[in-house]
Amino acid sequence: MKYVLPMLLLLCIGCKEQAQKETLAQFLTKGKFVDLSYSYSEQTLYWPNNPTGFKLDTQFNGITPGGYYYSSNAFFSPEHGGTHLDAPVHFAKGKWSTDEIPVEQLMGDAVVIDVSEKVINNADYQATVDDVLAWEKEHGQIPDGAIVLFKTGWGKYYPDAAKYLGTAEKGQEATAKLHFPSIHPDLASWLTKNRKIKAAGIDTPSVDYGQSKDFKTHQILYAENILGFENIAHLEELPATGAYIIALPMKIKGGTGGPLRIVAWLPQ
Amino acid sequence: MKYVLPMLLLLCIGCKEQAQKETLAQFLTKGKFVDLSYSYSEQTLYWPNNPTGFKLDTQFNGITPGGYYYSSNAFFSPEHGGTHLDAPVHFAKGKWSTDEIPVEQLMGDAVVIDVSEKVINNADYQATVDDVLAWEKEHGQIPDGAIVLFKTGWGKYYPDAAKYLGTAEKGQEATAKLHFPSIHPDLASWLTKNRKIKAAGIDTPSVDYGQSKDFKTHQILYAENILGFENIAHLEELPATGAYIIALPMKIKGGTGGPLRIVAWLPQ
Repeated sequence: MKYVLPMLLLLCIGCKEQAQKETLAQFLTKGKFVDLSYSYSEQTLYWPNNPTGFKLDTQFNGITPGGYYYSSNAFFSPEHGGTHLDAPVHFAKGKWSTDEIPVEQLMGDAVVIDVSEKVINNADYQATVDDVLAWEKEHGQIPDGAIVLFKTGWGKYYPDAAKYLGTAEKGQEATAKLHFPSIHPDLASWLTKNRKIKAAGIDTPSVDYGQSKDFKTHQILYAENILGFENIAHLEELPATGAYIIALPMKIKGGTGGPLRIVAWLPQ
Repeated sequence: MKYVLPMLLLLCIGCKEQAQKETLAQFLTKGKFVDLSYSYSEQTLYWPNNPTGFKLDTQFNGITPGGYYYSSNAFFSPEHGGTHLDAPVHFAKGKWSTDEIPVEQLMGDAVVIDVSEKVINNADYQATVDDVLAWEKEHGQIPDGAIVLFKTGWGKYYPDAAKYLGTAEKGQEATAKLHFPSIHPDLASWLTKNRKIKAAGIDTPSVDYGQSKDFKTHQILYAENILGFENIAHLEELPATGAYIIALPMKIKGGTGGPLRIVAWLPQ
């Protein structure tokens, strides 16, 4: 008995030491990453009034005079298409541009709110405060610093414009034909007043629904420097809680948004 | 005494439980992030033979007919400029393009090898096997899965082309005037044969030095699906060991590289 006590003390200390010394690389081996980003290509979806989408121009692809293989491209893209960031300045003058967003704002606990049953017969569905309260009843209050993601199931249509956007037509007039679900402005307002979130994201083209004319959800969230993540891929792979989001945008000086590489880490 | 034993057992179990239940968000509070990425702007540096660098076109910036503020841009960029990824296919036919790189390959323990004293009087310096062996003598062998970063101190010149590239001239002929340090092909070869690294990075424009004509370091590394990270910013903020790199590129389908948002996490 007189040896058990010191041994247990050593065990306790050892256990604490081990926890303190664990590296991030070691910690991450206890889970896996899921890529929530679509690739950029000529299939990438943009708002219908963009005259041009993503263009990749081959600069060189082949054997050089020096005898070795070489390939290189240049590209063009509007900031707002594919899996992308909305910087707050997109709808809120004076708020963060893409390059001004602190790195810590781009990472946080994922809160995944499933509204996929609500949108089945209603492409114009807007997620409500009640949807969030129902989620919280089951999973607890949205933690401070969370990244709140709305799962509509719309990703299964990407990149079929007719199904995903509601229209495959192009031009300003086509914007009236957009139909996809998103976040109701009343919920955006409630989130800014009652919860402390870093970003709101969705697996549809916009944080306002397709039929929005005034983009109120954008205006309300971005006025508070809350970020928008749009066209998120593979949201169906995330659980309601427990995932962690790392979302790093191309760092465009003065950007109003831009291509976003967003991944989730899932503990296993 | 008879109460001490059960209490210690509970403490031990509690301590282990706590360690197991720790979330990634909680783990990350034990350190801080450093952004190692330059912003994209008209100041962004590209290889001199690129006819055009980064261009940001304002699509709209002002009050809309609906009465709310709105701003949006489109942009153009060659894949290889600013803080960017070289995908292996840039110099190795059939190897990973940007979108094919597994997410896990983009993250790892940072090994930071300081060659800044070697380059002071030699802008054409190429890091050697001896530089790595000297680092290993002090810090131990480069761990499997590491991201090996060479710190030359060149970042202090960015974006002054004359100092950073060695010439501010443009066009194909200017490439002969490039002077900046990088990684010797012999070291690249040694790394592929003797260590298992995910990526090699540097705070200069290229993983081959400015005077390279055949880009052997590129060829050697990329043939083994090792990634290149170029024009890394703020490398002076990283310690020799202990930092963890998360480097997420814009996901360009078939890309030979592209804009890279690279951050380091430093335990504190």
